[in-house]
Amino acid sequence: MKVVLEYDGREFAGWQQQAHGRTVEAELKRALRSITGQELKVFAAGRTDAGAHAEGQVVSFQTDGRISPRRLVAALNAKLPGDVAVLSAEEMPDTFHARYSARWRRYRYRYLDRPSRPALERGRCWHVRGPLDVDAMAKAAKALVGKHDWTSYCSASEPPDARVRDMRSASVLRRGDVVEVELVAEGFLRGLARSIAGALAEVGRGRRPPEWVGEVLEARDRRQAARTAPAGGLTLVEVIY
Amino acid sequence: MKVVLEYDGREFAGWQQQAHGRTVEAELKRALRSITGQELKVFAAGRTDAGAHAEGQVVSFQTDGRISPRRLVAALNAKLPGDVAVLSAEEMPDTFHARYSARWRRYRYRYLDRPSRPALERGRCWHVRGPLDVDAMAKAAKALVGKHDWTSYCSASEPPDARVRDMRSASVLRRGDVVEVELVAEGFLRGLARSIAGALAEVGRGRRPPEWVGEVLEARDRRQAARTAPAGGLTLVEVIY
Repeated sequence: MKVVLEYDGREFAGWQQQAHGRTVEAELKRALRSITGQELKVFAAGRTDAGAHAEGQVVSFQTDGRISPRRLVAALNAKLPGDVAVLSAEEMPDTFHARYSARWRRYRYRYLDRPSRPALERGRCWHVRGPLDVDAMAKAAKALVGKHDWTSYCSASEPPDARVRDMRSASVLRRGDVVEVELVAEGFLRGLARSIAGALAEVGRGRRPPEWVGEVLEARDRRQAARTAPAGGLTLVEVIY
Repeated sequence: MKVVLEYDGREFAGWQQQAHGRTVEAELKRALRSITGQELKVFAAGRTDAGAHAEGQVVSFQTDGRISPRRLVAALNAKLPGDVAVLSAEEMPDTFHARYSARWRRYRYRYLDRPSRPALERGRCWHVRGPLDVDAMAKAAKALVGKHDWTSYCSASEPPDARVRDMRSASVLRRGDVVEVELVAEGFLRGLARSIAGALAEVGRGRRPPEWVGEVLEARDRRQAARTAPAGGLTLVEVIY
């Protein structure tokens, strides 16, 4: 079964189940247990960080086929807490795997660049004081498109021989006092989206020239990267199969 | 002093201070007390309901002039809780009154019309199942524009001789699975915006024809109105002076 989830990450310690802390995976497994009576193994397309959100997280699991997708959506939405919702469910061949079958993932990072802190969007954006130069950020983002070794922008915990991934697009646009970065890539290594968001903020604030983002990428040196941007600004928007 | 506020109404029992329940007015007065050492009387342009939000609520109060607008914004944002933020402050003549000086108020009402309940936007929209017919709603909304007696669409507690107000515009548009109604009027009688939102939903769902909204208005009979729409969908967007 393929299930598409939306969640508000503010009260979650991320996707992945862990010994302590409330997680989306644990909430989903609990709901599935109460509906099917079984302990199901679930796989997610993206293991989002604590505080990060999803509009289109995709999850797969095997059922015994006795519940229809339609009934499953209704039952899950009745059982899940208010900050997680199931948008759709679809029967899939057994070979389908939310993580390994994914071709592209789309993430959005949001900055709020106004003097005052957010009240309505708190935990849903990164509040940066002083205006961001969107043109400079968009210019910087161009260097990210293509197949690259992402060593400078991913966690040191990623195996060095598995850091080459294709970035299909990287765009930056303004909507009022919100600046949005949208990244589409075949895979997002741990820390990648937030590390890129941190680097683009440096350019947007005028602390670094646009070329710097590409230079850091080419250096393949994690120490050259900027501060990682806060998780609240990040949303897993869509997974394409 | 004129102060512009943003707030997330989900955890508030509305603007107006009351014996029980957390209110925006009480939070603001508490913050002002701790900054100025004085008990200030504050006036708001719109007394928003429990659960309703503001992107541009305007508040006025008299200070002894010893604090600059710039310092007041910083001090208030440091003292106020996370779900209230001050966007700006401006010194005004003593004749300025947030409520009585206002010329126009702009409110937005948001519906989410998709099968699944919202997780990210919970408490920020009215979730209606089944698609809303935006064209029919827009056609219905046209009847609201102009100077009318709003008896059918306002609370019975409003004095019968004070129910005539000018509605400058009433528009409906779709953004993805969110439908937004925007109303600009010189004054919003108690219950008006949510009562209109409830009536437009009836048209959007095909339960009533577009003409019905205008017929209810002309009837000047509160009993003919639809169910009042939930407060979470409503935001005070802007006040024009």
